[in-house]
Amino acid sequence: MKTLLKECSISISEAGMPELRQDPITQRWVVIAKARAKRPDDFRERPKTAGTATACPFEYGNESMTPPETMAIRPSDTTPDTPGWLVRVVPNKFPAFSTRIDGRTTGGLYVSRSAFGAHEVVIHGPDHGLTMATYPEKHVALVLKTYRQRYEYHMKQPYAGYVQIIINHGEESGASLEHSHSQIFVIPVLPEKPRALLDGASRYFDIHARCVFCDIISAELTFARRVVDESAHFLAFEPFAAQLPFETWMLPKEHKPRFEALNDNEIEDLAKIFRRTVRRFLNGLGDPPYNMYLFTAPPRYERPETMHWFMSITPKLTTPAGFEMGTGMTINSTVPEECAEFLRNVKI
Amino acid sequence: MKTLLKECSISISEAGMPELRQDPITQRWVVIAKARAKRPDDFRERPKTAGTATACPFEYGNESMTPPETMAIRPSDTTPDTPGWLVRVVPNKFPAFSTRIDGRTTGGLYVSRSAFGAHEVVIHGPDHGLTMATYPEKHVALVLKTYRQRYEYHMKQPYAGYVQIIINHGEESGASLEHSHSQIFVIPVLPEKPRALLDGASRYFDIHARCVFCDIISAELTFARRVVDESAHFLAFEPFAAQLPFETWMLPKEHKPRFEALNDNEIEDLAKIFRRTVRRFLNGLGDPPYNMYLFTAPPRYERPETMHWFMSITPKLTTPAGFEMGTGMTINSTVPEECAEFLRNVKI
Repeated sequence: MKTLLKECSISISEAGMPELRQDPITQRWVVIAKARAKRPDDFRERPKTAGTATACPFEYGNESMTPPETMAIRPSDTTPDTPGWLVRVVPNKFPAFSTRIDGRTTGGLYVSRSAFGAHEVVIHGPDHGLTMATYPEKHVALVLKTYRQRYEYHMKQPYAGYVQIIINHGEESGASLEHSHSQIFVIPVLPEKPRALLDGASRYFDIHARCVFCDIISAELTFARRVVDESAHFLAFEPFAAQLPFETWMLPKEHKPRFEALNDNEIEDLAKIFRRTVRRFLNGLGDPPYNMYLFTAPPRYERPETMHWFMSITPKLTTPAGFEMGTGMTINSTVPEECAEFLRNVKI
Repeated sequence: MKTLLKECSISISEAGMPELRQDPITQRWVVIAKARAKRPDDFRERPKTAGTATACPFEYGNESMTPPETMAIRPSDTTPDTPGWLVRVVPNKFPAFSTRIDGRTTGGLYVSRSAFGAHEVVIHGPDHGLTMATYPEKHVALVLKTYRQRYEYHMKQPYAGYVQIIINHGEESGASLEHSHSQIFVIPVLPEKPRALLDGASRYFDIHARCVFCDIISAELTFARRVVDESAHFLAFEPFAAQLPFETWMLPKEHKPRFEALNDNEIEDLAKIFRRTVRRFLNGLGDPPYNMYLFTAPPRYERPETMHWFMSITPKLTTPAGFEMGTGMTINSTVPEECAEFLRNVKI
């Protein structure tokens, strides 16, 4: 028991860095990111609205409210961290993954390590009132070009196990700031969800000698009833085993393992279908909160022939409950074919 | 493509039964339970409150509003489906798993099967205003004895792959009816979360020749900083890699693979510590919504020496966002040691 005691007694509050802890049974990683937190006492009264009374750190003139920018799309005659930018990338003020390298790890029953990596915010634009659904298509393309640049940069870092880009739109989606933005997480391990996708795609390829995503695209194009939208290069559809109402996937119709390999022409086409999809939510479902996540091949992935990047966008209309927490399965009370039909018919 | 088309075109709306669909990439199962649903149109305007204006089907005198009871704890001079019961079990009116046996399955790229099984509701008691935190301890024990009886019954059914018991307390936890109740899901497959726990515990046992849960209990008792409460037979603590704020586990201190093997004495002791735990939430966190789930060995499990049942209770204070959806990891912005200290100090 002496050893166990020692293992238990690491205290992250001393180090002040986010920590990755591994579940001793399932080996699933959890980020304990106290810097983002509240003390337990803060939960006594739950806040009802995100703070909007204070100045927004994502508007022109408030650049000093964020850490210095790591990248921006801005006219060449403007200075970093001053107004004039179109899209701006800054480190998250309360990072879940810290760039401070700290080799501390523990082993034994309880495994933990410092959560080093990176955590950035992509500010979609200076206008507080606009979103990916209401910015012009050209501006949405600038945001996607920013993703591409950040993927290219982060994928090269030796500590990158996976790079996750997401949007939380609207307070109920988990967004802590109202102003439209994305987040980029550079994670030192390969998390379970992309691992399950990689393993599944690899297993399928071993049996069929084909990319499972390419087969899905063929099936959906032929069946047509789950298709939401199609552009020159992309297909948007509700997956056959959608976990949530109106869960929508967007994939390149051609086999493409990596988002960051998109050329400008493809990015502009993606901006079009992406914007149309979130406009379907806006006009059909009354601007619901939504979550977007991107799936792309991890750094140095050795089987690109099995992999196909995609974007998933899901309005936040339900909440996981005891069944989902206990089983890991979900109950979806809508039928994907009906959700697709509904979204197809929304006026955009 | 012909075959693919055929596979895609199954339509569950015709059969009118819930359907299990498997994700073609990860092989994860999803329940498409249209009977519970709304049409896509119903999401245009999201309801803000659960219906409370209409009569509650879980009160005395309203027994005919539910399907006939499958079991009840009631005085022997009362008749089924009439008042007088203390705890009442009825089939869910909108089941996620149906008792109608229907052998329909499809294979190929898209795998699906009828979601047969069972889905019951345990009505905790007739009083609309009481909850597991405010019923007397003896009454809570009756609810736990009902769990035991239903586990014993369902585990014997040939179609039971897993039996999941849960509580959703409060609307934001996913509860659709306010009146305190549990749900029992009899699932024809072994879902991914219990499978991960079984596999992990089995792997640990292979290496250490000990139950991982027993080792966790020893470690927590020694370390003490994550302990919330302790009774004669049970330990309540915050797990080392807690995924959520105030996530609390309750385990029997002795090695016990199955909840349903508890004797009356142990059930009464569990009722005590369980009730105290939800009272900590009530008094310390202002009656937050919470989710409870039970984990126990599946039917006919061949390695009981590796397995140890537990109960997990977590207040619903956060919402999974894009990071969680994309990676399958969670970011917990609280420190389990601090949450345990907070809960320990709540006056119950």
